Parts: sequence; C-alpha cells; structure tokens
Amino acid sequence: MVDAKGRDLNQAWIVSIGAELALGQTVDTNAAWLAAELARLGVRTERHLTVTDDLAAIRDAVTQAADAAEIVLITGGLGPTDDDVTRQALAEAAGEPLVRYAASLEQIRAFFAARGREMIERNEIQAMFPRGAEPIENTCGTAPGIAMSLRDTPVFAMPGVPFEMKTMFKRDVAPRIKSGVSAGVILSTVLRCFGLGESDLGERIADLMKRGRNPEIGTTADLGVIGIRINATADSEPSARELLADAEAELRSRLGRHVFGRDDDTLASVVGAVLAKRGQSLSTAESCTGGLIAKLITDVAGSSAYFVGGAVTYSDEMKTSVLGVDPELLEAHGAVSEPVAEAMARGASTKFDTDYAVAVTGIAGPAGGSPDKPVGLVYLAVAEPGTATVRRLLLGADAPRHVIRQRAAMSALDLLRRRLVPNCGQKAAD
Amino acid sequence: MVDAKGRDLNQAWIVSIGAELALGQTVDTNAAWLAAELARLGVRTERHLTVTDDLAAIRDAVTQAADAAEIVLITGGLGPTDDDVTRQALAEAAGEPLVRYAASLEQIRAFFAARGREMIERNEIQAMFPRGAEPIENTCGTAPGIAMSLRDTPVFAMPGVPFEMKTMFKRDVAPRIKSGVSAGVILSTVLRCFGLGESDLGERIADLMKRGRNPEIGTTADLGVIGIRINATADSEPSARELLADAEAELRSRLGRHVFGRDDDTLASVVGAVLAKRGQSLSTAESCTGGLIAKLITDVAGSSAYFVGGAVTYSDEMKTSVLGVDPELLEAHGAVSEPVAEAMARGASTKFDTDYAVAVTGIAGPAGGSPDKPVGLVYLAVAEPGTATVRRLLLGADAPRHVIRQRAAMSALDLLRRRLVPNCGQKAAD
Repeated sequence: MVDAKGRDLNQAWIVSIGAELALGQTVDTNAAWLAAELARLGVRTERHLTVTDDLAAIRDAVTQAADAAEIVLITGGLGPTDDDVTRQALAEAAGEPLVRYAASLEQIRAFFAARGREMIERNEIQAMFPRGAEPIENTCGTAPGIAMSLRDTPVFAMPGVPFEMKTMFKRDVAPRIKSGVSAGVILSTVLRCFGLGESDLGERIADLMKRGRNPEIGTTADLGVIGIRINATADSEPSARELLADAEAELRSRLGRHVFGRDDDTLASVVGAVLAKRGQSLSTAESCTGGLIAKLITDVAGSSAYFVGGAVTYSDEMKTSVLGVDPELLEAHGAVSEPVAEAMARGASTKFDTDYAVAVTGIAGPAGGSPDKPVGLVYLAVAEPGTATVRRLLLGADAPRHVIRQRAAMSALDLLRRRLVPNCGQKAAD
Repeated sequence: MVDAKGRDLNQAWIVSIGAELALGQTVDTNAAWLAAELARLGVRTERHLTVTDDLAAIRDAVTQAADAAEIVLITGGLGPTDDDVTRQALAEAAGEPLVRYAASLEQIRAFFAARGREMIERNEIQAMFPRGAEPIENTCGTAPGIAMSLRDTPVFAMPGVPFEMKTMFKRDVAPRIKSGVSAGVILSTVLRCFGLGESDLGERIADLMKRGRNPEIGTTADLGVIGIRINATADSEPSARELLADAEAELRSRLGRHVFGRDDDTLASVVGAVLAKRGQSLSTAESCTGGLIAKLITDVAGSSAYFVGGAVTYSDEMKTSVLGVDPELLEAHGAVSEPVAEAMARGASTKFDTDYAVAVTGIAGPAGGSPDKPVGLVYLAVAEPGTATVRRLLLGADAPRHVIRQRAAMSALDLLRRRLVPNCGQKAAD
C-alpha cells in the first residue's frame, strides 16, 4: 500500500484511547506491542498519544496524527458502551456520517449465536462505521476494527482488548501495511536465554551491543528470561537473513547452553519438543509454585502428548497420600528440604508412571520464613530414569511472592531442560 | 501554585521521551504511575504523548502540551549521551539559550565523589538549563530535573529512570503541584464483576455512565472480569467519599451477585477469604486448565490456610488413578463430559478430604475438537458437602488456547464463589 500522496508508509503514530489509560489505572501495553510489530515490518513509530474517552479530544488527536504520520494505528474505544466514542470521533474527523453496515451486523449476531446467546441491541453500534470506511473482522470479539483514510493517511482502529487487537493486527492490519512498506528490509529475531544475569550476559556481548552496529543488538529481561533482540537492516531479504544468521551464531558461541531458544520459544515449549520427539513422558509435583509449572507446561498446545498430569501438594498430608513422601522424612527435614524435594520428584515419576518428573518445594512468602529457612528458599528436583537431581535456590527474602513463584517454576523447567539435553548441541561449553 | 493566567492547575498532559519507548522496546510504566499520582492530588490527566529522541519532535510536543494543559510533566531525555535532547528542546520551545548553572554542576560532581568516582566531562551537559529555569535536585542520580514556565504553563521535566523519577516527583514536584491545585478531591474505586458481558452490564447501568455525571463511571473488561471505575470529584474528602459510597450502593443493587469485589480483589482472593473465615478447605481437579486454577488460588498469600492442593489429571489414566474416576464413565461419556466433571470434583473432595472441590474438563484447542465437542467446550464442577453442581460452557471455537483456559479457570472460581455465598448479601437478585 502506498498512500494517496504517493508516499511510502514507513513512519507511524499510535493512538491509545481510554480514561483508564490516561488516568494511569491501567498501563498501556498495546502501544509498545504495536510499535515492536511495526518495527518488524520496517515501520518506525515516532509518537504515541494516549487520550481519554472524550469525543473532541479523540477527534483532535486522530486528526493531528493523520496530518503528521504516514500510518495511524488506534486502539480502544470500540466497545458497546456509552464511553466508547472512537467510531464517532473518526466520523467527525472525516466529516462523514456514521452508517450501518449490514454485513458487520450479521458477523456480530453470528458471534453471539456461536456462543448460544442473543445479540443485544446495544451491540448494534458496533456495526456503525464512518461512511466509506472498511470494517475489519474481529475473530475473537464483537467489535470490528475500522480501516479508513483520514487526510489521505491510512488509519486502522482496533479494539483495546489485547488479544483481540493482536489477533486483528496480525491477521488483517499487518499484511496491509506490509504491502505498502518501501524497499529495504529489517529482519529481527530474539534469542532466549536462561541462567545468567542481564549484566553478566551484557558483559559477555558488550562489543556486539555497541550503538550504530548492524545488526543492532539489545537485551530485555523478564523474570529471569533474557531476550537478545537482533535487528538486521539490509537492501534485500537474503542479505538481512545472512547478517542475522552470523550474529546469531556468534551469540550462541559466546553464551553456550544458556541459550534455550528463539522468538516465541519458552522453556516449556523447548522441553516439550524434546520429550515429544523422544516419546517420553513428564509429570509434576508442586508445593510453593502451586500449579504454575503444570500451567506453563500445558500452555503449550499439544502438551498432552507427553504431559500426563501432576499434583499440587500444598499440605504435608497430600505430599504423603498422593506422592508417597515418607512422613518421617517430612518430620526430620521439614517440607522445604532437599530430601523432600527429591522424594516428591521420585514419587511423582513412580505414582504417575512417567519417564521424567519435576518437583518444587519452597517458601514463597510473604509469611512462613525463618532464619534457617528464609522466604525465597526453594528446592528443585528432577527425577529421570536411574537418577534424580536436586538444586537449592535463594530467590531473595524481599522479592514479591509472585516473583519467587515465577522464578522457581522457570528454574525448575530450566533444570529439566539441562537434564534432558546435557550438552544442548552448543559449540561453546559453559 | 496558580499559574500566570490565574488558572487553577487541575488538568495535566504527560510527555514521555525516548526512542526505546516509541519503538516499543520498553513499555512506558512512568506515565501510568504519574497519572495515578496526579489523580491523588486532584489533577486529571487528559493525554500522554510518547515522543522519540528527536529535537524538533520533542520541541513541538512540549509546546502543544503547554498550550493545551494546565500542568505538563515530562520524563526522559535528560541523560548525558547524545540522544538525550530534552533540555535543548525545552530551551528552543522557550526561546531561551542553554546556560550553565554552577550549583547544579557542583551537585553532580558531589554525586560522583560520594561514590568514589570522578565526574566525566560528558556529564557537564546535565548542569545546563534553559535560561530562567529552576533545577530540581536529583537525590538518586546525576540528571537534575527542570522546572520552568512554558507559554505560561508550569512544566516539570524529570529523568526517565523510574526510581529517580518517582523520588523526584514525590520529593519536589508533587508538593509544588499540590500547593497550586484548587480545592477539590478526586476519589476512585473499582468494582469487580464476573458473569455478565460488558454490553449487557453496560445496558443495566447506561444512565449512570452518561457523560458529565459526577461520579464519573466507566467500564473495562479483561478476560471476563469487568471493572467498573467510579471517580468522584468533590470539594472535600468526606463529600467525595459519600458520592463514591452512593454510586457503589446503586451499582451493587443493580448488578447483584455479579459484583464479586473491589479494587485489588480477585475471584480467588474473595473465595479464599470466605473459606478462611469459615475454616473450610478446598482442593482442585484440573484437566484442560492444567494447573491454572491451583495457580490462581495459590497466588493469594496465606492460601495454605484453606487450600490443601489438587491434581492436574491430563491423561485419562490419572483421572482414574488419582481421582478415582470410574473408567466406565470415561468410556461411556468421554473425558469432556458432565458426569466426568462431576466425578472429578467429587473424587478430589473425597481423596484429598476437603469441604469443597472444583474441577474442570474441556477442550482448550487448537486441536482436539469435533463437531460434537468443539474447541471451547468446557464443563465446570463444584463438589460441596451433600451435593455437586456442574456447568457447561461454550467459550468459542476460534478463541486462542490461553483465552479458553483463562476463562474456564475464572468461570470455575466464579461458580465456586456463587456456591459458597449463595446470596452474596446483595439487595438485587439475579
């Protein structure tokens, strides 16, 4: 798509709409997600505007954006309630009336019908569009998006609910933008690492992260997983691909087994792929993580091929009755101990009849710590044919409960990964 | 502070500066934090702008903000590197030169000295200010803030590093704003609802959501939980509190049992509070949610007081061996069926010896659906002393796997809540 002025579409503004965003009651994650997606398409985002639910303010903001940008992306304000006024603001900005689109109305009706419900009258507003605008189908909700031209600039309005917006962007908006982006390619990939701190990792690759280099390399950290983003710019896709491959090879050789995957890989998906390929099975035994490890494993579609299930044994009684942990072991060492972690893993693999089992016991806090066993003390165990491995972690007495739980779960999956693939096919050891 | 035009300072714009923000490599949490702090001071944030590190773009954005807002808060772009140009942009916008402030230079030198380091030349730029501007001391970093008047509007520029910004805002900026805000208080609360669609709920309270009303009422939806935000504005805190209480009472009377809590309440925390108070116990039996319900329950600190644990029975074998589900039942009805859901819940409450048990079995997709049992078909069950309740849900054959799992888990907790508190002490039935 090249717009009516014959310009290339390489520069965007993003407009986020919602009183809850402007007032700070919700952090806007949509804008950052969209800007990152646009970067992948070779489009640079110059500005984000966050505007409260006010008709005049939205109209003025989208008009300013359409004047300044080559593409405008809008999220929010397409719901069925009275405070949702994005469609009205777009109509005013374009100087067009709102008109009803019969086909969209049918799609909304069908959405309700598929869920055994009747569409209520209020939702009819979602089939109204500024005259001349093109509806964008919403495959996961009732609010269609809006594609239109405003001051000769292409504008795409999407719902504010993140998964609806993301689905719509990937399915419909990105392809339209892609077809309008000028020559020159930015290709990106992200390597995923676990087991190193961000500053330690940063030190190992500091020379590659210098400003102005191509590929450009940067890191982000999220609960222990470090993403190393590589952006390669070139005239053609093959050249960009080659730059990317070279950088990736260099990073992998420096970071060895700490690299567990790329892009959308998770520790759970990587572990799952190995198990599925080998036809091996897995179960879990969780205390302080309370189901989180099983949840992460079953986030992966197709996990039933290797994951048979697990136990959340929060009480000592359940550790004994479900996993067969010896009560004397619990008595002698306490539930948060190396022998109990090992017994939980071995118990799960025996009772649930799986090749591998992963277990966690620890103190997630904020209460329950002692000088001997502080909040953040966690034991991980992996049972596998013939042996079991236990690790002791200290995840920080002042870390929030959810952080301790998340790190414990991720570390358990990482221990399983390292047991499953002892040398990970890396060039460098670590 | 009342500004030079004699206006009260009740309405703000926030400008966030940084290429990493505009490009979506970092999510801007500063703007939401500042907007929430401003609301506490009685200042309403109307718009956020996020601008890349570009001198002209920043100059134009702060000028537009100063024209439209009564207070402008800026974060970012005050660092010592070449891409930090906020101070230059403010000087251009004000039509003033940048001049060196000796006292600030001394503070920056002292900051380095206190850490046993020498100030490098590059940091000298941080002692430069638009002529007439007032430096704001940075007690945790090298970049002083800038307080100045632009187009007769007070402007405060702060560093982008969150803890430096927050410390500076609380220590210096908030007191200045507070002294300039006209009498008046905004108090907010959010009611949390589950079990109604946003449009259906919107219809029941449409008259209360009309624009210009006080309290102002708006809704947001997140995976089935609808938050109803109430913002009450009044001359004094007691009056605002009264407005808030009246609105809340009216909303509760219209929405009845669909309201499950407020502010930070979750379905799991509300259910947990009831169980803890009554000294009753809970267990879980999960198939398609794969541990997510147990995870949500144990997200709540102190959940070990009522939650003994649960089973993730992904395979049929585990449903039988761990929960005691009759293999003939599985054979006759399939794992995703009403009788199996009930047997899972009853099995958990018997085997794990708890007063209540909640069970889920369903098809989360994307594979595994059939015309008879499509993706999104889920059965929930709650076992309690003397009885069991089962519900059938259709969560949408085209919804993503994680959405189906999340909705199934939330719906199961909601069913448990409604069984635990059959009439929830509401005035209106539903």
